[in-house]
Amino acid sequence: MSVVSLLGELSGVGASRAGGYERLAWTTADAECREWFAQSAAARGLDVEIDRNGNLWAWLHPSLPGKALVIGSHLDSVPRGGGFDGPLGIASAFAALDALAALAGSGPSRPVAVVNFADEEGSRFGVACAGSRLLTGSLGAETARALVDAEGTTMAEAMAAAGLSPQGLGADAGRLARIGEYLELHVEQGHLATSAGHDGLTRDQPLGLATEIWPHGRWRVDIPGQQNHAGTTRLADRRDPMLGLADVIRGVREAAQNAGVLGTVGKVRVSPGAVNAIPGSVSAWIDARGGSEAAVRSALAELESSVGLDLVEESWTPATRFDADFAGRIAAAVGADLPLLPSGAGHDAGVLALAGIPTAMILVRNPSGISHAPEEYAEDADCERGVVALAAAISELTDWTRTP
Amino acid sequence: MSVVSLLGELSGVGASRAGGYERLAWTTADAECREWFAQSAAARGLDVEIDRNGNLWAWLHPSLPGKALVIGSHLDSVPRGGGFDGPLGIASAFAALDALAALAGSGPSRPVAVVNFADEEGSRFGVACAGSRLLTGSLGAETARALVDAEGTTMAEAMAAAGLSPQGLGADAGRLARIGEYLELHVEQGHLATSAGHDGLTRDQPLGLATEIWPHGRWRVDIPGQQNHAGTTRLADRRDPMLGLADVIRGVREAAQNAGVLGTVGKVRVSPGAVNAIPGSVSAWIDARGGSEAAVRSALAELESSVGLDLVEESWTPATRFDADFAGRIAAAVGADLPLLPSGAGHDAGVLALAGIPTAMILVRNPSGISHAPEEYAEDADCERGVVALAAAISELTDWTRTP
Repeated sequence: MSVVSLLGELSGVGASRAGGYERLAWTTADAECREWFAQSAAARGLDVEIDRNGNLWAWLHPSLPGKALVIGSHLDSVPRGGGFDGPLGIASAFAALDALAALAGSGPSRPVAVVNFADEEGSRFGVACAGSRLLTGSLGAETARALVDAEGTTMAEAMAAAGLSPQGLGADAGRLARIGEYLELHVEQGHLATSAGHDGLTRDQPLGLATEIWPHGRWRVDIPGQQNHAGTTRLADRRDPMLGLADVIRGVREAAQNAGVLGTVGKVRVSPGAVNAIPGSVSAWIDARGGSEAAVRSALAELESSVGLDLVEESWTPATRFDADFAGRIAAAVGADLPLLPSGAGHDAGVLALAGIPTAMILVRNPSGISHAPEEYAEDADCERGVVALAAAISELTDWTRTP
Repeated sequence: MSVVSLLGELSGVGASRAGGYERLAWTTADAECREWFAQSAAARGLDVEIDRNGNLWAWLHPSLPGKALVIGSHLDSVPRGGGFDGPLGIASAFAALDALAALAGSGPSRPVAVVNFADEEGSRFGVACAGSRLLTGSLGAETARALVDAEGTTMAEAMAAAGLSPQGLGADAGRLARIGEYLELHVEQGHLATSAGHDGLTRDQPLGLATEIWPHGRWRVDIPGQQNHAGTTRLADRRDPMLGLADVIRGVREAAQNAGVLGTVGKVRVSPGAVNAIPGSVSAWIDARGGSEAAVRSALAELESSVGLDLVEESWTPATRFDADFAGRIAAAVGADLPLLPSGAGHDAGVLALAGIPTAMILVRNPSGISHAPEEYAEDADCERGVVALAAAISELTDWTRTP
C-alpha cells in the first residue's frame, strides 16, 4: 500500500475545524490513531503488542534470532499540528514492509518491529517523548504519573481512561535489550543548514540524514505583580506583570539572536486573565535550542540578566549525536548522496540514542519548512522516495534477501 | 444586623484556594450568593422577586404610592476578586434598613427596594453590567443570549442551567418606570484625585460621593503570525505574533501615559499555546478609560499607529455624569463634607443614569486602593460609617419619619 494512501486513512482523525490536527496524547483522537496502527499491523500479519509504557509494537518474525531492527515514529500531534510530523514515519514503515513483502519468498534474517511511541509531542503533559523516555528510564514512572494537563488531569488518570494501567509504567530493560538499531523517517522541519551548504533540503536532494539533535530545553519564568482594577489604579501605582512579559518576549528574541540560537515564547499564563484586571502574575515558557550547549546557556544567562528574573528549568536534553557508522550503512544502502543536517526538534530517536542504541533519521524534504502547523507539508513523490530509501535500508540492515 | 456580620455570612461562598473569591455570573457560587440574598430579604419581611433578566429585587412596602428608592449593588465577582466590590453595597443596604427598622412605628413614605444586579462584572461573558443593561435595553436580548464564555457555554445556556428562562430576557420599561432614584454604596477602587485635592479618600474623609463614571471601553487586537516549530524555524524565517504582543503591551502603556489615561492589557489568547510551537496568532484585550473621551480616543489612535494593527471595539461607554441635585440631597442628608471623585470603574449605577434615572454612589475608603484582587479592603469602622450614611440618605429621601 502506498504511503500516501496510508496517510489518507488517517486524514479524518482529530482534524481540527480551525485547520490541522488535534491528536494530543491519550485523547479520543489519539486512541483512533492507535487503533489504526493496530489494525494496519494486523492486516500485514504483524504481531501487535503494547508495552508497559503504552508504546505500540508491531513485530515481523519476532522469534528469529538476533536483535531487532526497529523502525517507526509517533502518531500524536501538537495542537493544530500538521499531518506529517510522526504519521509519515509510521506510514512509511508499513509501506516499506509492503514493498519488501512483495519480494516473494524473502524475509529478514532477524526481527523487525514498527513502533508507535506514545506521547512524543508532550503537548498535553509538558514532557516530550514521554513514551520512549519511560522505556529507557530517563523519565521516572512516579514523575510521569503525576504530570498534569491544563484541565488538571494527571497522566496516570489519562492513561487509565485510555484503558492502560499506569501502575505498570517504568524502565523496560528487557525490551530495550531486544532493540538492535532504531531508524526513524521524519518530515523535515525548518530549513536548517545542510552539509551541502544549503538552507534545508533542495529540489535536487529531497532526502537527508540527521547527524544529531540539538541540545534543547524548556524554561519557565514567573513574573510577579499586584492584581488590581484596570479602571481605577493609577499607572504610577501599578505593579503590572504584563510589562515584564513584554520584556521577556523581547529579551528571548534578542538573546537568541546574539547567541546564534533559537529562542521562542510559545505559551503564557495570565492570572486571572480578566479584561478589567491588572494581572496578579504572568508565567511564560521559553523553548531554547542551538548548535551548542554553550551557546544556548549563554542566551539564557543574557536573558536572566536583562529581565532580572530567575528561569526555572523544566527540561534539558544535551546534544545527541547519532551513530556515524550506522548512518554510513544507511547512506550506502540508499545509494544516493544524502546531505547531512542537524535536527532542531527532539525525537524518540534522540532518547534511544542517549540510551546507547545505534540510531538514525531519514529526513524528507518539506518545501515550506513549516512544521507543528497545518501548513506542514511533503510532496507525494518525496514521501514515496522516503519509502524506497527506508525499504533499501531495511533490506540491507536485515539481510532481507535470505528466506527466513 | 451589622454590615460586617452580613459580609461574614458570605465569606465562605466561592472562596478561592488561591485567595479571593470566584463568584462568576451563573455559577454555583453565584447561585449561593443569590440564595443568601433571597433568605436575607425574606428574614427582613421584604418581598423578593426575580425580574425577567435575572436581577433580584427585595421590596419594602411595594404597594405604597410613588416611585421607589432603589439601593443595592451586585454579588458576582471577577476571578480571584475581593470581598467588597459588590457585596458591601448589598450588605450595607440590608444593614441600613435594619437600623431604620429599629425606629419603632416608622417607615418610608414610598416603596424602597434592595437590588442585586446580575452579572455586573462581565468576567464570564465579556459584557459588564449585563443585568442592568438588559433591564434598560442597552444590551439586546439576542446579543446577550449568544454571548459565550471561555468553555463555549452561552449566556442562555448558563442562565437556563441556573433555572431561569433565557427566552424572557429583554428591556423592562414597566420596571424601569417604577424606579425613582438609584443609590449604590461601593468600596473605593484606586486612589483617584478627589475634589479635596487628595489622591483618594483620606483618614479624615472615609466616605465620598462619585460625580461621574469615566468613559471606558474594551478593545481587542488580533496579531497574525505563522504557526511553526520552535526548534527548527530560523529566526529570520519566523512570523512570530508574540513579538507583536510585546509591542502591544508596551504601546498600551506608553499611549496611556502620553494621553494621561489608564490603559491595561489584562487578557491574552495565544494559539495554539504550545511551548514548542511559534504561535499562529495572538489576541490581546485592551481596557482603556480616562477623564475625557478625547483623551482615551487619542491614546487608542496612538496605539493603532504605533503597532500598525486595527483595534476592534468590543464595548464603549461614554462619560456618565451623576445627577448633581440628587448628590446634593444625599450630601445634605449625610451631613458631612463628602469629597467628590470620579469612578474609573463602570457600575450598574452608570447604566441606570444613562437611562435617565437620578443616580448616586457613596464610596467607602479603601486604604490599599486595591480592587478586583484578594487585597481589596475596607475597615470595619468605615463600613459602619457607610451604613450610617446610607440610612440617613434613605431616611431623608423616603421621608422615613412618617408611619406608612
